[in-house]
Amino acid sequence: MKIGVIGYSTSNFGELWDRSPRDLADEVIKESLIKANLDKEKIEALYVGNMLSGILGNQANLASLYAEVLGISVPSFRLEAACASGSIALNNAIQSIKSGAFKTVLVLGIEKMTDHPQDEAVAGLMAAGTDEERASGITFAGLYGLMAQEYLRRYEMTEEDLALVPVKNHYHGSFNPKAQFRNQITVEQVMRSAKIADPLKLLDCSPITDGASAVIISSDPALLKKSKGVEITASQVGSDSVGLTGRQDITSINAAVRASVKAYKEAGIKPASVQVAEVHDCFSIAEVIALEDLGFSKRGRALNDIKDKKMTLFTGKTIVNPSGGLKACGHPVGATGIKQIIEITMQLEREAGKRQVEGAKIGLTHNVGGSGAICAVHILQI
Amino acid sequence: MKIGVIGYSTSNFGELWDRSPRDLADEVIKESLIKANLDKEKIEALYVGNMLSGILGNQANLASLYAEVLGISVPSFRLEAACASGSIALNNAIQSIKSGAFKTVLVLGIEKMTDHPQDEAVAGLMAAGTDEERASGITFAGLYGLMAQEYLRRYEMTEEDLALVPVKNHYHGSFNPKAQFRNQITVEQVMRSAKIADPLKLLDCSPITDGASAVIISSDPALLKKSKGVEITASQVGSDSVGLTGRQDITSINAAVRASVKAYKEAGIKPASVQVAEVHDCFSIAEVIALEDLGFSKRGRALNDIKDKKMTLFTGKTIVNPSGGLKACGHPVGATGIKQIIEITMQLEREAGKRQVEGAKIGLTHNVGGSGAICAVHILQI
Repeated sequence: MKIGVIGYSTSNFGELWDRSPRDLADEVIKESLIKANLDKEKIEALYVGNMLSGILGNQANLASLYAEVLGISVPSFRLEAACASGSIALNNAIQSIKSGAFKTVLVLGIEKMTDHPQDEAVAGLMAAGTDEERASGITFAGLYGLMAQEYLRRYEMTEEDLALVPVKNHYHGSFNPKAQFRNQITVEQVMRSAKIADPLKLLDCSPITDGASAVIISSDPALLKKSKGVEITASQVGSDSVGLTGRQDITSINAAVRASVKAYKEAGIKPASVQVAEVHDCFSIAEVIALEDLGFSKRGRALNDIKDKKMTLFTGKTIVNPSGGLKACGHPVGATGIKQIIEITMQLEREAGKRQVEGAKIGLTHNVGGSGAICAVHILQI
Repeated sequence: MKIGVIGYSTSNFGELWDRSPRDLADEVIKESLIKANLDKEKIEALYVGNMLSGILGNQANLASLYAEVLGISVPSFRLEAACASGSIALNNAIQSIKSGAFKTVLVLGIEKMTDHPQDEAVAGLMAAGTDEERASGITFAGLYGLMAQEYLRRYEMTEEDLALVPVKNHYHGSFNPKAQFRNQITVEQVMRSAKIADPLKLLDCSPITDGASAVIISSDPALLKKSKGVEITASQVGSDSVGLTGRQDITSINAAVRASVKAYKEAGIKPASVQVAEVHDCFSIAEVIALEDLGFSKRGRALNDIKDKKMTLFTGKTIVNPSGGLKACGHPVGATGIKQIIEITMQLEREAGKRQVEGAKIGLTHNVGGSGAICAVHILQI
């Protein structure tokens, strides 16, 4: 069964204090319908990815709420998988189409984080950790800091090498009008920024962000014919222990390896075939590990590949995070997985403007929940 | 495709202060595997229904957490749809099997509510309402109280008539060793109990409860052959506006009508064919409305039918809430939808002990989120 992306829309990402979650949802739902040239009555179900609305905003039952915004009474489902909520919602939406329950489905990823004091948001994010991690006082920056320490030690890389990740992603973000940060940065600026969790510094960390993103997917041959032809050829999920102490190796995320092996098999492609990818760079080290877990770089070699500009726009062969990634585009957690799908769709449709990856026909998204408890990998082709 | 219930387990429902969510999950996961005579490695995915863990316990990423408890790394998904979270998780699990992604899946419903001050739990539950409802200070008892006022006025029924619902359900609960309340009550006791939201009194309201329930469902012919043969022949979801003010008529829940019409069609049966049902009696009026929405009673006649003992164990033809329902069995919100499935499975398998409905071959579950924003209806047959 062919399932294609027939419409999409993403809000600006950033500190959107003047906009409510309903406003953001309304914007991207309406614009994705316009983009698909589709009447709302054609939407048969709604899937919503969100992590923090209950914890920060005391609002549950989100799927019903956003079905109201959509304006039609359709079956609606809210998925929560920490920072992977968006792509997990997409995965379930795809399964619902394959099951025969629906043909055309809207998937909304949404998060409103900056209306709350920053310590509340950080405490809320730690809801994705374990009791033991919370009791120890560690944050996600701390967990990824431990992963970074071990990675740099094992492969004899430096903090300056690690800084190349946000430098690349801010460079990419400078071409994205919807990105939270569009300023280029240097290795020196990363090194001089405040230490957050050794060896990670402020500019190694993705920001706290508001945003919403929506895609409309369909298996309806008539609608697919009208679309530009981007197809989702794989949707796979992998999992591992929630806490870092349960992992065999903290320089790899097993959930991502599991998901990507299955995804490559489902799509019938190899890692080297991927021309453009959006990966989960919540911290610099996360992108490094992702490049190796996905098979784009050999173990211990990802930072060398970034140094050689193999993942950079206009010079590389596998362009990683052309949107600016979580670091520069921003990270509204429930929306991120859907924004990744939109970025790849725009790249394959040649609609990515100044950040267009020339000739891209195969793209991939990689979206992680927690410090690696869950990962969803999608492959898109045109 | 045939999908059957091949294993199940539910914890005691009640105030389980000495047990953590992990303990409860561990109990029902292990027992459901034993019941199915299945090795855990046969479980291909985990679906989790939970509403309040983030809001009350600051724990998100629940699907990954309970995959750890299960002890194998499988794709795992958490669904949230207020008090319908359990059956919405089941609906998505069924779709995943129909999609071909998995053959055998475990669905866990879980809620831990009594560890928190009661006002926090009530505020948490209001997360399923709208901003306007919360701002007005109304509770869910208040919302259902409004529905009850209008129903009693329109159909000229009395508060004593309404009290027959909890009297029936406590009678049923007296036969259920896992129920939170196993004491029989009288109309007089209901009438004398404290007023909560006119005309609803304390004994019209389901309690705050801890509990976990798990079912294992499968399409694997070999496993179905080993099982007792209970099949899920329909799984449908309906929706409506989140707030009461958005409804055309507050004496009916449109989401339930929509879901049940589709479910009867999917299973190819009529309401009169249903011999046993578990319906969402979060408040007395909710069961009354459910009986009419599901077509068991004519509009305005449900209380007469209850008075005539048409829904009561040992006397009726459509036995409703043999478990004791939410009122007597208890209402751990994420677990309720799965407990309903287990009760119907036990009835069809003739495993319901003293509350056995003789000769039951067709059963139904009805699980509502919020004041009627979403409803899932499942039909089971043997």
